[in-house]
Amino acid sequence: MFPLNQWYVAGFVWELKERPLARVLLNNPIVMFATEDGGVAALEDRCCHRAVPLSCGTLEEGGIRCGYHGLKFAASGQCIEVPGQGKIPGKARVRAFPAAIRNQVVWIWFGKDAESPPDCEPPEVPAHENPVYSWKGGAFHYKAPYQLIHDNLLDLSHVGYLHGRTIGGNAKVHMEAPTIVTQDGDKVRVVRWMKNSQPPATYSAAWPFKGSIDRWQEIDFHLTYLQIFTGAVEPGEYALDDPQRGGFHMRGFHGITPETETTTHYFWTMASSAHPDQPDNAETVYRQTEQTFEEDRVLIETQYSNMKQFGSGPMIDIHVDAGANRARRVVASHVAAQAAAAGAVG
Amino acid sequence: MFPLNQWYVAGFVWELKERPLARVLLNNPIVMFATEDGGVAALEDRCCHRAVPLSCGTLEEGGIRCGYHGLKFAASGQCIEVPGQGKIPGKARVRAFPAAIRNQVVWIWFGKDAESPPDCEPPEVPAHENPVYSWKGGAFHYKAPYQLIHDNLLDLSHVGYLHGRTIGGNAKVHMEAPTIVTQDGDKVRVVRWMKNSQPPATYSAAWPFKGSIDRWQEIDFHLTYLQIFTGAVEPGEYALDDPQRGGFHMRGFHGITPETETTTHYFWTMASSAHPDQPDNAETVYRQTEQTFEEDRVLIETQYSNMKQFGSGPMIDIHVDAGANRARRVVASHVAAQAAAAGAVG
Amino acid sequence: MFPLNQWYVAGFVWELKERPLARVLLNNPIVMFATEDGGVAALEDRCCHRAVPLSCGTLEEGGIRCGYHGLKFAASGQCIEVPGQGKIPGKARVRAFPAAIRNQVVWIWFGKDAESPPDCEPPEVPAHENPVYSWKGGAFHYKAPYQLIHDNLLDLSHVGYLHGRTIGGNAKVHMEAPTIVTQDGDKVRVVRWMKNSQPPATYSAAWPFKGSIDRWQEIDFHLTYLQIFTGAVEPGEYALDDPQRGGFHMRGFHGITPETETTTHYFWTMASSAHPDQPDNAETVYRQTEQTFEEDRVLIETQYSNMKQFGSGPMIDIHVDAGANRARRVVASHVAAQAAAAGAVG
Repeated sequence: MFPLNQWYVAGFVWELKERPLARVLLNNPIVMFATEDGGVAALEDRCCHRAVPLSCGTLEEGGIRCGYHGLKFAASGQCIEVPGQGKIPGKARVRAFPAAIRNQVVWIWFGKDAESPPDCEPPEVPAHENPVYSWKGGAFHYKAPYQLIHDNLLDLSHVGYLHGRTIGGNAKVHMEAPTIVTQDGDKVRVVRWMKNSQPPATYSAAWPFKGSIDRWQEIDFHLTYLQIFTGAVEPGEYALDDPQRGGFHMRGFHGITPETETTTHYFWTMASSAHPDQPDNAETVYRQTEQTFEEDRVLIETQYSNMKQFGSGPMIDIHVDAGANRARRVVASHVAAQAAAAGAVG
Repeated sequence: MFPLNQWYVAGFVWELKERPLARVLLNNPIVMFATEDGGVAALEDRCCHRAVPLSCGTLEEGGIRCGYHGLKFAASGQCIEVPGQGKIPGKARVRAFPAAIRNQVVWIWFGKDAESPPDCEPPEVPAHENPVYSWKGGAFHYKAPYQLIHDNLLDLSHVGYLHGRTIGGNAKVHMEAPTIVTQDGDKVRVVRWMKNSQPPATYSAAWPFKGSIDRWQEIDFHLTYLQIFTGAVEPGEYALDDPQRGGFHMRGFHGITPETETTTHYFWTMASSAHPDQPDNAETVYRQTEQTFEEDRVLIETQYSNMKQFGSGPMIDIHVDAGANRARRVVASHVAAQAAAAGAVG
Repeated sequence: MFPLNQWYVAGFVWELKERPLARVLLNNPIVMFATEDGGVAALEDRCCHRAVPLSCGTLEEGGIRCGYHGLKFAASGQCIEVPGQGKIPGKARVRAFPAAIRNQVVWIWFGKDAESPPDCEPPEVPAHENPVYSWKGGAFHYKAPYQLIHDNLLDLSHVGYLHGRTIGGNAKVHMEAPTIVTQDGDKVRVVRWMKNSQPPATYSAAWPFKGSIDRWQEIDFHLTYLQIFTGAVEPGEYALDDPQRGGFHMRGFHGITPETETTTHYFWTMASSAHPDQPDNAETVYRQTEQTFEEDRVLIETQYSNMKQFGSGPMIDIHVDAGANRARRVVASHVAAQAAAAGAVG
C-alpha cells in the first residue's frame, strides 16, 4: 500500500511530445499527453473497447485516438468518437487522473479512491525558477521498492564509500559528521555539517576551492519527494546556517514514485550555482550527478535482490539510520491511517 | 481448455528436413519428421528412458534415435531398439499423434482423449493447388492467447488504423463498410464490401489499378483455422458476389494453433493472382503480407500484456465486433459441450 | 533437501583474488576471500546492517568492508568496526562457514545445522599433486538439479552418442561394455572395460595409439563429488586392473555442488599423462574435456527443461542405469536419515 491523497511526480514537461507518454505509476498504467490549454492529461492506458494501450495510438486535436479501431478519447477520459457508429455507448470512458504541471514537473494526484480530488496544489520546486541556478534532470528506473531509495537519500553518510569518484570525500569524516534529525508532521529534516573537510571530486571540478571547505547537507523529506540542499563555502566564510550564504550550491529534487510494490521511478533534477571563473560548470555537475545516482541504483538493486534472497533477516541499526527510520515511521503511520479509514468505511 | 476432436495446423511440409521438427501444440511438446511413405510422424517429444527430447536426436531409416543413450522409436511411438540390451521393455513407447499432410500443410489431430481417432480428413486449402495463384507462407509465434488472433482476423475494420502502409486504405471507409455476419454450425462468415474506395498500398503495388476500386473481404472462420478471400476489381466491373469475378485476389490461409493457454502458433500462407502486366507481383504481396501480420503480432501481444496488467476489466462492444463475438460463442459452446461430456463420463 | 554434514566444493584457489568471490551454495549466498594465514574465509554474503552483499565491498587486512556504510567483518563473521560509532552492537555479526583449501580446491562444510563443525578433513584429490600429471579445470553453471549430473557421470555409456567429437568412440561398443557396479557405504563404484576398441578422437589426438586399444572407465561416486579414472593402453599391454598400468590416463575430478534445488555448480579438473612423443598434450586434453562437458551441460539442461514441461512422467530403466540408480538410493537414504534425525530432535 502506498501513501495516497498525494501528488506524485509522473515526469517532466519536456517528455510530453508528439507521441503519448506511457508509465505505470502506483500500479496504474497511465498515458499522458499535453493539452491545448498548456496542461497535461493523464488517462488510464487502456481503451475501453478491447483493452489496447491508448499510448499505442495517436495524439489529435482534442484528445487521443486508439490505434486498433480508432476510438477517440478527450482529456476528461470520455470517448468522443466511435468511427462508423452514430451512438457512443454511455460507459465508453476511461479513468482520468488529476494532473498538473508546475515548475516543469508533471504531477499526478493519487487520491484515496478514484473520486478523491486534490486538496492542495502540487509541490513547488523553487530551484527550477531561481535565476541563480542552472539545472537539468532525468529519470531512472529501479528494480527495487521506493523506500530503499528514501533510506539512501536520508542517509548521506554513504557517499564516502559509494561515491568516491564524484561527491564522496573522506569516508571517515562523513561517518563522524554531526547530524540533526527533526520532524514536522509528515516532513523529516536531516542536517549534517562537515567543517574543514576535503572537497570531493565534483566540488573541486565545479568550483575553484583551494583547500579544505565547510560543507553542509540539508535533506528535506516529504512523502513523495525530497529536496536536498548541499554545498560548501571557504572555511569560516559563512555560518553554515546562514540562509544568505554563498559558495557552491547543489539543489537536488528527487521525485520517488512507486511503479509497483517492487519497482520505482526516480525522477531527479540538479540545480547548481556557477562561479564567475567557471560559468559553464553546470554540465559537469549534471554528468557527475547522473553517475552518482547510477551508482546508487546499482547498489540499491543489488541490496533489494539480496533482501529477497535472504528473506526477512534482522537488520541491525547504526547511528546513521536515524533520519531514514524516522521517514519509515512517517510512511507507516500514514499508510496505517489510510487502512484504518478504509476499514471504517467498509 | 481448447476445442478438441479437431485437426490443427502443426507446420508446413517444407519444414520437415534432415533434422527433427519440434513444437509445443496444445501444451504437448511434439517432435515431427517425414516418414518413408511420404507421410509425417508426430510423437511425444520425450524419450521414455530419461525424458530427453527426442528432437535432440537423429532421424534414421525407420524412426528417430535419442541422442543420449540411443533408444530408437518408430513412427508408431514404439521403441524398436535399446542398444546393448536384448529385451525391449513392453512399456517402452511414447505417444503418437495422428498426423497427415494435405496441400503442403502438416495437420495433427487432437482428440478428446489419446484414444480418439480422426473422424474426418484434414481440411483442404484449395488455393494451394490452384494454378491461377502463386503462394508462400510462414509461421509467427505469439505471446498471446489464440482467441485474440481470431478477433483480429474476424474484424478487418482495423486495417485502416493498423495497416496503413500495406493493406489499409481509408480508415473511415473501412469502419463504415456494410458488414454481413452469418453462421452455419461451427462456421462463421463475415462479408464486407467497400465499393468505390481508394486502393491500399499493397493493391496499388501489385495490380495496375488506375483509380478507385470495388473491394471485398470474405472471412471464413473454422474452429482451428480461417480462410480469408479479399480482393478488388475496377468499379462496376463485376458484381462483388460473382463467384467468377476476376481482378486482384488475395487468398489467405490462417492456421491458429494454441501452443499453451497464453501463447499461439500462427501459420499462414498468402496466395494471390497476377496481372499480365505484373506477372511477378507475388513476392511483393508476400512481403507486404508478412509486414502486415507482424504489425498485428506486435499490437496483439501489447493488447494481451495490457489485459494481464489490468485484470478482467469490462470491454465495451462496438459495431465491428459482431463476427468476432459470434466466433467466441462458437468456441465457448464447443468447449462447454466437451467439458459436459467429460463430466458425464467421469 | 541436500546431504548435509559434508564438504562441498566452493571453488578453486586461483579464484581468490583482490576482489571478493561470491557464490550461492546450497541456497546460501556466500562471500569468500583469502585470509592472511593462507586459508579461506566463507561468510554469509549479507551485511547485518542493511542487507547489502558484502561481496560488493572491499578486502582489507583483517577482513572485508561493506561498500555501503563501511562496516568491517573479520573472517570469523564478527563485525569489528562501525565507522563513526564507538560501540559495536553485540549482534553485529554474520554467519561464517567452515572452509578450507586442499589440493587447490576450496571446500566449505555444510553441517546439519549452523553449529555442526566438520567431523573430517576435506577430501583429497591426489591427481592434483601427482607429478606424472598435468591438470587444469573450470566451473560450469547448470540450470538443472545436481542429481541429473550424477546420473550423467555414473553412466558413461552415453559418450558414444553425445561426445562423438571428443571422448566418444563407437556407440555400440560403449553400450555393450561389461559393467560392474559395487557399493561401499556411501560410495558407489562403476567399472567398465572396452577391450580392443577404436580410440576416440581425444585419445588419438593426445597419444600415439596406432590401432585399437584396451580402454577402461573407473567411476568413484561420493556424496558431493566424483573422481573418474579413464584411460587406455595398447591391447594386452597391461591387465586393465593392474594398479601400475601405464598408457594414457585421464583423471577427472568433479565437484557437484547444488546452488539451489534446481541449479548447480559443476567444478571440474582434468589431469592427464603425457607420452614422451607428445609432451604438450595437456592443453588438447583440457580443451576437448571442456567441450565434452559443455555438450553435457546443454543436454542436461534440455533434459531438465523437458522434465518440467512434462511433469512427473514415468521413466523406464535400461541396463546402463544401475550405477546411477545406486547413487540415487545412497542420496535418498542419507537425506531420509537426516530428515528423521531432524524430526526426532524437533
